[in-house]
Amino acid sequence: MRATLIYGAGDVRVETVPDPKVLEPTDALVRVTRACICGSDLWPYRSMPVSERGERIGHEFLGVIEDVGTDVEGLSPGDLVVAPFVWSDGTCDFCREGLQTSCRRGGLWARGGIDGGQGEAVRVPRAQGTLVKLPPTEDPALLASLLSLSDVFPTGYHCARTAGVDPQTTVTVIGDGAVGLSAVLSAKRLGAERIILMGRHDERTALGREFGATDVVAARGEEGIAAVRELTGGDGTHTVLECVGLREALETAFAVCRDGGTVSRVGAPQYGELPMGFPVFMRNITLTGGVAPARAYIDELLADVLEGRVQPGRVFDRTVALGDIAGGYRGMTDRTALKVLVCP
Amino acid sequence: MRATLIYGAGDVRVETVPDPKVLEPTDALVRVTRACICGSDLWPYRSMPVSERGERIGHEFLGVIEDVGTDVEGLSPGDLVVAPFVWSDGTCDFCREGLQTSCRRGGLWARGGIDGGQGEAVRVPRAQGTLVKLPPTEDPALLASLLSLSDVFPTGYHCARTAGVDPQTTVTVIGDGAVGLSAVLSAKRLGAERIILMGRHDERTALGREFGATDVVAARGEEGIAAVRELTGGDGTHTVLECVGLREALETAFAVCRDGGTVSRVGAPQYGELPMGFPVFMRNITLTGGVAPARAYIDELLADVLEGRVQPGRVFDRTVALGDIAGGYRGMTDRTALKVLVCP
Repeated sequence: MRATLIYGAGDVRVETVPDPKVLEPTDALVRVTRACICGSDLWPYRSMPVSERGERIGHEFLGVIEDVGTDVEGLSPGDLVVAPFVWSDGTCDFCREGLQTSCRRGGLWARGGIDGGQGEAVRVPRAQGTLVKLPPTEDPALLASLLSLSDVFPTGYHCARTAGVDPQTTVTVIGDGAVGLSAVLSAKRLGAERIILMGRHDERTALGREFGATDVVAARGEEGIAAVRELTGGDGTHTVLECVGLREALETAFAVCRDGGTVSRVGAPQYGELPMGFPVFMRNITLTGGVAPARAYIDELLADVLEGRVQPGRVFDRTVALGDIAGGYRGMTDRTALKVLVCP
Repeated sequence: MRATLIYGAGDVRVETVPDPKVLEPTDALVRVTRACICGSDLWPYRSMPVSERGERIGHEFLGVIEDVGTDVEGLSPGDLVVAPFVWSDGTCDFCREGLQTSCRRGGLWARGGIDGGQGEAVRVPRAQGTLVKLPPTEDPALLASLLSLSDVFPTGYHCARTAGVDPQTTVTVIGDGAVGLSAVLSAKRLGAERIILMGRHDERTALGREFGATDVVAARGEEGIAAVRELTGGDGTHTVLECVGLREALETAFAVCRDGGTVSRVGAPQYGELPMGFPVFMRNITLTGGVAPARAYIDELLADVLEGRVQPGRVFDRTVALGDIAGGYRGMTDRTALKVLVCP
């Protein structure tokens, strides 16, 4: 089959790799019909050292089951399924608690011999715990929204949920990328009435307004902080949803958080340390969030997606064939594309 | 009157200062009958640069009202009162939300012309919001426990509450100082059944066991982390109460926290930055806590103290006269005293 490999910064190639097949009785083989590029894929695309062998990449996909191992129940060839961006057994204590990202027998796609999502097919370990069966559909808009359940929508939702967003809380969302816009949509779904979106890209913030943002702040740094404070009587918001992953974004997050409030972060950290000393301590600001257990949220969000109450798939603004995926990476890197859908 | 001043590291003196009096209609004048030395007073005692003028010090006291301003209601000369370690007006939005440490018209003792607690008397600003009236008592043990409501007990309680301690959560408490022991007592009060206390001082951890600790780990660093992990099936505890304030304590806290768990910190930060990058992110660990709004918790804890259901005053193991307070500082610094009560 064909799959995407990354050989270093700026070097993504589609190559022929061995066809995956069911190896373990808990596996399933999924033919990928929709995949996509994640903002977090751009970090290696920008900075990965050269690799002679290349590495598989991609962790969001939706497709049709072609084969299942003998221990897999409830999934059959022909079923449409979506995979969360971490695979998990669904039975360990962490999975039962809804923290499938810490599954005792789970792991990441495209690591340690596991296929990546940006290819024609994927061997899915722990398929019964990992995959979620979907009703059959060929509606492109619905398929895009269903694919968003793999990562970007639950990641935004995790941010809003762990921040404690509810109808009483004011919200600042930092970042107008696909995760930031998903966080806006999530905050709105949780009842927030005041959602300030910090982002500089007009097309993106326009979608953010459609998703529920009530205010947009285009300025960054000190000027952006001052603008959010001015919108909130000088105080900042009860919750801040950090959807970037850069230290500067976290510094802004603390600065626009109201005393006693919560900063939740879901941007993959491009930092090692954060300023968590006296100023944050004296203001009783909580830092929460982390990698989103997408599997836990799919059950909660699926009905809204299927019934069209939310349309998270609107974050996809470009579609490429698998063979053209390098162009998709370029588009997301140079910000001409918000999020790229890949059709193998 | 006489009051304590600090002139630099290791240099605490009791001197005559101007007698305080009611200046504002919202003030009260309190004659201090019990004060104490806080673990956080030891930071300047260890490292403060030399000051020619000296600075007032102390933020925990209990005493009798001698005078009140014309706007103060519900408090009269002769009333026994306890002061939380931050003064606050009791009427602003933060106060009404229970975050009196962020009061819009409040502040710290011994700063900006406000008296410190380690003296014979204190002018209390915003007295009606700040002070809590107590039933008259001369019982020394009860007075010690009532004094603990000023800071140490609510600080431990804030740690346990913000961490989300309940009967289902396992708990690690880092630090066997007076705050750590108060955190043990607080976790027990909130129903925790498994409380691991990390501390090296036998007498202190013995009191910790009486307060509710089920396990004691004397080792520190990697060895201490390994011991807590071994006690918890390799996972760490759901909640970790950090009661030290050093970076190493926070590093231990993250390491002994179960994935998806919460670290709460109440140790005054002696660090500027903390390692909050990928490892903590991937494990979905929350960092919460901060300076404790003691005023909010006094209402909640007072009945338990008055009725003897908890005896937080047991953390006081030495009493000195005001004139001997320098010896009290030395005792707490060299760890021959856990917490020192001061009788002006």
